[in-house]
Amino acid sequence: MSEALPDHPPARQRVLSGMRPTGALHLGHYHGALKNWVRLQSSHDCFFFVADWHALTTHYQDRGEIERNVYDMVIDWLAAGVDPEQATLFIQSRMPEHAELFTLLAMSTPSSWLERIPSYKDQVEKNRELATYGFLGYPLLQAADILIYKAAYVPVGEDQTAHVEVTREVARRFNRIYAPERAILPEPQELLTETARLPGLDGQKMSKSAGNAIAMRDAPAVVEEKVRTMPTDPQRVRLGDPGEPTRCPVWPLHELYSTAATQAWAAQGCRSAGIGCLDCKQPLIQAIHKEQEPWRERAESYLANPKQVQWIVEVGTERARAVARKTLREVRTAMGLAY
Amino acid sequence: MSEALPDHPPARQRVLSGMRPTGALHLGHYHGALKNWVRLQSSHDCFFFVADWHALTTHYQDRGEIERNVYDMVIDWLAAGVDPEQATLFIQSRMPEHAELFTLLAMSTPSSWLERIPSYKDQVEKNRELATYGFLGYPLLQAADILIYKAAYVPVGEDQTAHVEVTREVARRFNRIYAPERAILPEPQELLTETARLPGLDGQKMSKSAGNAIAMRDAPAVVEEKVRTMPTDPQRVRLGDPGEPTRCPVWPLHELYSTAATQAWAAQGCRSAGIGCLDCKQPLIQAIHKEQEPWRERAESYLANPKQVQWIVEVGTERARAVARKTLREVRTAMGLAY
Repeated sequence: MSEALPDHPPARQRVLSGMRPTGALHLGHYHGALKNWVRLQSSHDCFFFVADWHALTTHYQDRGEIERNVYDMVIDWLAAGVDPEQATLFIQSRMPEHAELFTLLAMSTPSSWLERIPSYKDQVEKNRELATYGFLGYPLLQAADILIYKAAYVPVGEDQTAHVEVTREVARRFNRIYAPERAILPEPQELLTETARLPGLDGQKMSKSAGNAIAMRDAPAVVEEKVRTMPTDPQRVRLGDPGEPTRCPVWPLHELYSTAATQAWAAQGCRSAGIGCLDCKQPLIQAIHKEQEPWRERAESYLANPKQVQWIVEVGTERARAVARKTLREVRTAMGLAY
Repeated sequence: MSEALPDHPPARQRVLSGMRPTGALHLGHYHGALKNWVRLQSSHDCFFFVADWHALTTHYQDRGEIERNVYDMVIDWLAAGVDPEQATLFIQSRMPEHAELFTLLAMSTPSSWLERIPSYKDQVEKNRELATYGFLGYPLLQAADILIYKAAYVPVGEDQTAHVEVTREVARRFNRIYAPERAILPEPQELLTETARLPGLDGQKMSKSAGNAIAMRDAPAVVEEKVRTMPTDPQRVRLGDPGEPTRCPVWPLHELYSTAATQAWAAQGCRSAGIGCLDCKQPLIQAIHKEQEPWRERAESYLANPKQVQWIVEVGTERARAVARKTLREVRTAMGLAY
């Protein structure tokens, strides 16, 4: 007789994260989120979704934009190394289950919880067109996105902790009212992971709308042109003037992309006026080219085979749906709606 | 050769109406709504649904109640003469399509439209527990219920015209943003139909919670007891005192149930103290018994065969779903979500 079989490995804890399809992803998305997704996918049961309904909460008048971007964004994910064999990729709007849970959770969620979220008031004050019922409910829709998969962790930036906190409150109240004996909706935790905040070409936060972004799939020549024309230390007017890296928008890129030796070379050459700004930028251009290479290769293979991308999303959507339906059955039963 | 075939008869216009499953239906429901449904079903394409999600907007803490009442209410409908061969009967919570349209419409609906509906502020002021996101969104969920079937008419009481007005505004805004060339969501009209407002046993509005109702399926002895113990003109203390019908809670029942001859007999007998109050009530008891007879027969047959009721709802739900899915496809396409 053999020894007792080893226990099953413990189930990987589920991580949920979504991204809005608002255009070609750039280096800021990669270093701020995707790199982290790729890291998490082998250790966690990752569910990554295209948050197209969320894009509508703020861009409800720009329909064409979203349509174009959905599959293109999935290709950016795959290019970055997200592995559909390990992670589950799907599209939010293909999951009416999210809308149903959103609707059900709405019944027991005080509107004051949503009104008090800081980003809501700020954004509505800036743009009255955003004062919609959907935008007010956006954190509740997000709660439904998370709770329907019983996610243990949600990777978030610091500006989103209020949203995960609301998700926990919504879950807690639901459990107290409808499942006091045994909680149905687990409270998720934030996953505050180390991510680099990548400045854009002008030193401000990189974003498509600011026009200061390098897209993940920008061609090498485009990258070179963008970096070569980046402004540098404004006080270094002539080649002979010494510069100061901490004043230079290019420096944070060195901090992210360059070895300690290259950083020392650049800082010293700048401060001593020993190198020109284009010299300083050269290793960066090389480093970004090198980073982009595997992305480009993967993207090309997927672009040549769009059916494959659709198939990946199809499989992911059905995998997600199986989990979502199971949770919804429990929720409906708890609420007395299981006839 | 035969003559050209006659044109198809014009499609019957669709009517949508829902009812909350909050307990056994009473004569107030019959005369205020069901009688009208029965009248409409032969001339219109009627969709009647159990509004269980709506019941949750105000009764989200009373789950057991709703669960018990759903099929029981459908039996009341069938008992009243609603004909599943003519009308489509279904359950709201079985239609995630409503939740999806609700979620999509939320994106373009200003929350101010919902906040300003008179009944919202009133009810929230009376009961703070109602200040939920779901209760605020209740007229929008109702708009989704209506628009997803492209209903032409919604039978409403006078207190609900504001809700149908919001539905029209929601449809108009959706069409303007997403379907400016050819409207997708038609604006429904109120169907203000002649319905009797039936007072309860105490002269106040008949309602289950007021404890002044005669249930549609109350047994004959129960009806008799309830009517016999109804208070009458408070100024007619002794049998010999003359009474005044317009002061008497029983009189409106005569107006609804009795012929002109019986009404004249009762009024004259009351004013002259020629008959006692129990005499006056006798023809009413008979009239209600007679009204209930076919209800009881139909209900008994359905109660003996609960599978049949489930089957009726099953068929209705799938019939409704086919219509709902078609509308949702159009809506998703218009919004740029049809990938």
